[in-house]
Amino acid sequence: MKATIITIGDEILIGQIVDTNSVSIARHLNGAGITVESKLSIGDSDHQIESSIRTALLTSQVVVITGGLGPTKDDITKHTLARIFNSELRYNDTEGQHIESLLARRGIAFTELNRSQAMLPACCTPLHNAHGTAPGMWFECEGDAVVVSLPGVPFEMEHLMQDEVIPRLKKRFMLKSIVHLTLITHGIAESLLAERIAAWEDALPDYMHLAYLPAPNIVRLRLSAYDVERSEAEVAMRQEFGKLEQLIGDHIVGEEGASVESNVHRILSERGLTLATAESCTGGNIAASFTSMAGASAYFLTGIVAYSNAAKSNILGVDSATIERHGAVSREVVEQMAEGARRISGADYAIATSGIAGPSGGSVEKPVGTVWMAVATPTRTISMMRNSGTDRQQIIKRASAYVVEMLYNELRKL
Amino acid sequence: MKATIITIGDEILIGQIVDTNSVSIARHLNGAGITVESKLSIGDSDHQIESSIRTALLTSQVVVITGGLGPTKDDITKHTLARIFNSELRYNDTEGQHIESLLARRGIAFTELNRSQAMLPACCTPLHNAHGTAPGMWFECEGDAVVVSLPGVPFEMEHLMQDEVIPRLKKRFMLKSIVHLTLITHGIAESLLAERIAAWEDALPDYMHLAYLPAPNIVRLRLSAYDVERSEAEVAMRQEFGKLEQLIGDHIVGEEGASVESNVHRILSERGLTLATAESCTGGNIAASFTSMAGASAYFLTGIVAYSNAAKSNILGVDSATIERHGAVSREVVEQMAEGARRISGADYAIATSGIAGPSGGSVEKPVGTVWMAVATPTRTISMMRNSGTDRQQIIKRASAYVVEMLYNELRKL
Repeated sequence: MKATIITIGDEILIGQIVDTNSVSIARHLNGAGITVESKLSIGDSDHQIESSIRTALLTSQVVVITGGLGPTKDDITKHTLARIFNSELRYNDTEGQHIESLLARRGIAFTELNRSQAMLPACCTPLHNAHGTAPGMWFECEGDAVVVSLPGVPFEMEHLMQDEVIPRLKKRFMLKSIVHLTLITHGIAESLLAERIAAWEDALPDYMHLAYLPAPNIVRLRLSAYDVERSEAEVAMRQEFGKLEQLIGDHIVGEEGASVESNVHRILSERGLTLATAESCTGGNIAASFTSMAGASAYFLTGIVAYSNAAKSNILGVDSATIERHGAVSREVVEQMAEGARRISGADYAIATSGIAGPSGGSVEKPVGTVWMAVATPTRTISMMRNSGTDRQQIIKRASAYVVEMLYNELRKL
Repeated sequence: MKATIITIGDEILIGQIVDTNSVSIARHLNGAGITVESKLSIGDSDHQIESSIRTALLTSQVVVITGGLGPTKDDITKHTLARIFNSELRYNDTEGQHIESLLARRGIAFTELNRSQAMLPACCTPLHNAHGTAPGMWFECEGDAVVVSLPGVPFEMEHLMQDEVIPRLKKRFMLKSIVHLTLITHGIAESLLAERIAAWEDALPDYMHLAYLPAPNIVRLRLSAYDVERSEAEVAMRQEFGKLEQLIGDHIVGEEGASVESNVHRILSERGLTLATAESCTGGNIAASFTSMAGASAYFLTGIVAYSNAAKSNILGVDSATIERHGAVSREVVEQMAEGARRISGADYAIATSGIAGPSGGSVEKPVGTVWMAVATPTRTISMMRNSGTDRQQIIKRASAYVVEMLYNELRKL
């Protein structure tokens, strides 16, 4: 079963936005056993939309389109679809009422343009968009193919894929599984890795395909198998990866999927432990990453963004003399920050960061990128310093990752 | 002058990575006056690569390909290109020596697989990749078209586009300009905005194309003009945007790059005013967004993520009886949070949020998405409630946007 994804919008072609919709749609389709053969991005052009859909239907049984369903003049997808399917636009009462009440809840007037969003090709099955004003559309074509049109707003598209499109595709087609399993390696260059595991790669069963995905200090090894029984294939692929333990054991990080944050989230939730944060250079990024996960309120008590020295002293109780003597970016201060956060929040664990995110503020001894990190636990406080380059966003991201990993290493000992 | 971008890699089609390469390539091409007609992502398949290039050349004079140039078996792009252009792979001494010395600097042995990266189709012009082991390739085809193949590692591709591909394209073709100018509006729904500026939109010169790009609480208006003289077009487009001042002046944030956050950042910095945050449901997201901007340490004093009721009382001094009586998600509590943040930090302004980000925790009176927001200023405290839907990430984003906008509206009065 093959699919083509078409994303519509001039903003994609001029590089004004990053197309994450097609990433999510590809994952959903793969998860349901449907192979994405190609992804295409085109402009808001009637001609391009029509010819792309017609071409896609030559090789794909499923075509998923996003974008061009807004209320304004540059959104033309619906009109093109009506024409392709020889259908006329008709007002859909159910969707119209939904749009009206949704806007009312947000205090926005229902205008003629909003009304036009409930005009749908008569031949389509509307897909109810609980989170927005543009309904999705499901078209059944001759010869068993399906064309689906979804709004381009990412989270609306996401809910429609999950709640409407995938269940309908599973009902309509008999689908086998696609299985991807990824092993993350670190500290070995792609070419050396490939040489080291060449014999293993050559001996893989024909239906398993190996891919190398290099990134700084990391290479992902992905095994893929198409049109298989999921559980059998997963067992066989794990057995193959198991053989790598002897060849490159030192370089294996683990399977793709769980992030360090989500592992910490799970351990704290399961064990009824609590967390506080005291952030200087990471500026709330760590607190935001935990609290973005549903259920965080069970363990996340307090986060302090102590950007000023006064905040470090007054709120976290860091000794002003220590700041004076060692500077705010120091082992002594970051340890007191972590301990202070633990104390004032009553949390079991606290993590702290203090560093120079730049672009200014660096010195010879403490250049931009210098970050001290600490973790205070019920039994001790540990700390370390890392330099994380010169780019402000990268420094914030990397320091956040390092200190959460420090916490994770402590929690893993439990 | 039209271009097609082709990105190669199964990892794109299964949704394992977000394709940012094509975003950057599109920006570079647009910046040089070349219109991207479509972007296509395909798998590591000899047949797909060949047919995609042949199809692209029917409509585009420039085809830029990335990916599939690594040293391992799954990287096949180079072989396909050699076949398409009836050429054979030959060892290129210059590139070979570069790869060897680059690996030596990183302490990595030069293997047979690395040597194969210097094997290039005899008919291409190698594009020197100073930052990696895979050279780019420049092919000139019959009929004035150019095919360029670049490695998929983002920063290697980036340098090659900038240092090699764009200068060569400018030399080879007579290019006019493409100009995009984007105006950011806030606090007005897309449909209302479209109605308000309909007459203005209808009166735009034919060569200017208007697009609407909605995001939570923001709509970007983009004017685009193709094959024009840059400076003239920019002047004309700024004049058109100038006319919007009278129509929607209150809702204009500024040109692309401006955001409500960055305007607040600018005003606070310029006036020597300071800020603190007290976040519950937004969980540090607001603090993180301010502190991600260079120079935030001049005004951002303290952020409190008061997730637990105890944190609200103990750190921010919210009256426990008030929480008991009105609930943590209430006007009374959020105002006390803002005032408390202002008091303990000594900041001039403080903003606070308290809401139900979900998925659980909602009730009939206060469903998921209910968020109370407050701004404490030197003279008063204001607050409002908004419902921001049912999706956790959206609720966090929208509530953050609303409350920063409340602050901005206060600061604009100064």
